[in-house]
Amino acid sequence: METITADQYYLVYNALSFTIATMASATLFFWFGRSQVAPAFKTALTITGLVTFIACYHYFRMFESWSEAYTVTNGVVTATGERYNQEYRYVDWLLTVPLLLVELILVMRLTRAETVSKSVTLGAAAALMILLGYPGEVSAGIDLTRLVWGALSMIPFLYIVYTLFAGLSNAIDSQPASARKLVSIARYVTVLSWLFYPVVYFAPFILPVDGAGAKTIIEVGYTIADIAAKAGFGVLIYLIAVRKSEEKGEAA
Amino acid sequence: METITADQYYLVYNALSFTIATMASATLFFWFGRSQVAPAFKTALTITGLVTFIACYHYFRMFESWSEAYTVTNGVVTATGERYNQEYRYVDWLLTVPLLLVELILVMRLTRAETVSKSVTLGAAAALMILLGYPGEVSAGIDLTRLVWGALSMIPFLYIVYTLFAGLSNAIDSQPASARKLVSIARYVTVLSWLFYPVVYFAPFILPVDGAGAKTIIEVGYTIADIAAKAGFGVLIYLIAVRKSEEKGEAA
Repeated sequence: METITADQYYLVYNALSFTIATMASATLFFWFGRSQVAPAFKTALTITGLVTFIACYHYFRMFESWSEAYTVTNGVVTATGERYNQEYRYVDWLLTVPLLLVELILVMRLTRAETVSKSVTLGAAAALMILLGYPGEVSAGIDLTRLVWGALSMIPFLYIVYTLFAGLSNAIDSQPASARKLVSIARYVTVLSWLFYPVVYFAPFILPVDGAGAKTIIEVGYTIADIAAKAGFGVLIYLIAVRKSEEKGEAA
Repeated sequence: METITADQYYLVYNALSFTIATMASATLFFWFGRSQVAPAFKTALTITGLVTFIACYHYFRMFESWSEAYTVTNGVVTATGERYNQEYRYVDWLLTVPLLLVELILVMRLTRAETVSKSVTLGAAAALMILLGYPGEVSAGIDLTRLVWGALSMIPFLYIVYTLFAGLSNAIDSQPASARKLVSIARYVTVLSWLFYPVVYFAPFILPVDGAGAKTIIEVGYTIADIAAKAGFGVLIYLIAVRKSEEKGEAA
């Protein structure tokens, strides 16, 4: 295992801890919000909270794993020989990314048939995207393996982005006026926060960093992307649900 | 204890952790859903959540037990001498499998007499199936003991499959139109996800694997079957309960 500096160690350590607190609070916020929206939007908030709940669990595991992989004594970092279990991120995404898409679809209030078909196709594309990215992430270094699997993973990614932009644009027109802008923002936030993941994935190819630097960028980068895509996006979903509940005069 | 590779160790490790997160989220989803269905279906969702709650507990124990049975230092796996407690799975099934059947029967809304008699006979058959499979699972190897007890366990298994298909087909005809298809799907999901357990049980007899390979296949295979039979099946039960609540116009 390459040696990281104490600064790099603590940067990742504190980013992971920060995210445990963020995800836990976001979860509680979304679940408390369930009582303040119309019945039609309760499931969307349940799932929004589940996404941050699952992320909180995995950030807790990552924090423990990171702490066990290194010891820092008098500012000197030593690898303990225990492996930092990077798979927690992929396991997390496999669960949360399809749920994130379902949460956006649910808050749109499409017809039942559209809700089911969009949830299934987008959810499957998201799972495929993550499974294709994984072999590149765990390959030995910043090499061709990472590049090829990363490129393959971009195919379902682009399909999702296209579907969100083109396919759901009609749905946006049918939203009540007060929520239309928020739904449109949510769509952009999805795409932009998601774009951050491939940027982090491919960053080590471009930036002049060594193995330890690449590792630090990847850990901190994915953490920022997760906060934006899960907690930040969730707040938008919450606002849309509240706005649409008011519109219909059906708030609980 | 046979030596497993680091890849095998981490595959099982991550599958167990993934399942803790899945079962915990499924439990919360089902229990939050209680407030969104008619009173007649609240018990079905309570039990659906109990099944995944019990599974979450056992997966947490299995994860701890697996972590304590091996140490991995610089990619080399060493058995610590502590035993991985496989019995957690059988203890889990003894509780959850009869509950799974009760949950399917409850959501069907049969007459009270039928509900009781089917719950008792199917629940007892399920318990017998698990008790008969156990001596084969813990026998020293992939041998005659495993084969004989596995075969005996198939008798109550086939009885349950037969009862679900033949005995409950009348009940399906009496379901409201909007839920009939979902109930029928739930019946098939039960049988298919359950069939996965004997497939995993007998797989080491057919696949060209050593002891460590067999162990990995059994752990990962049962994990996939548990996710499908408990969380996946539970989502179907939830959808049936919501659909039937809407049908009756009696949603809470």
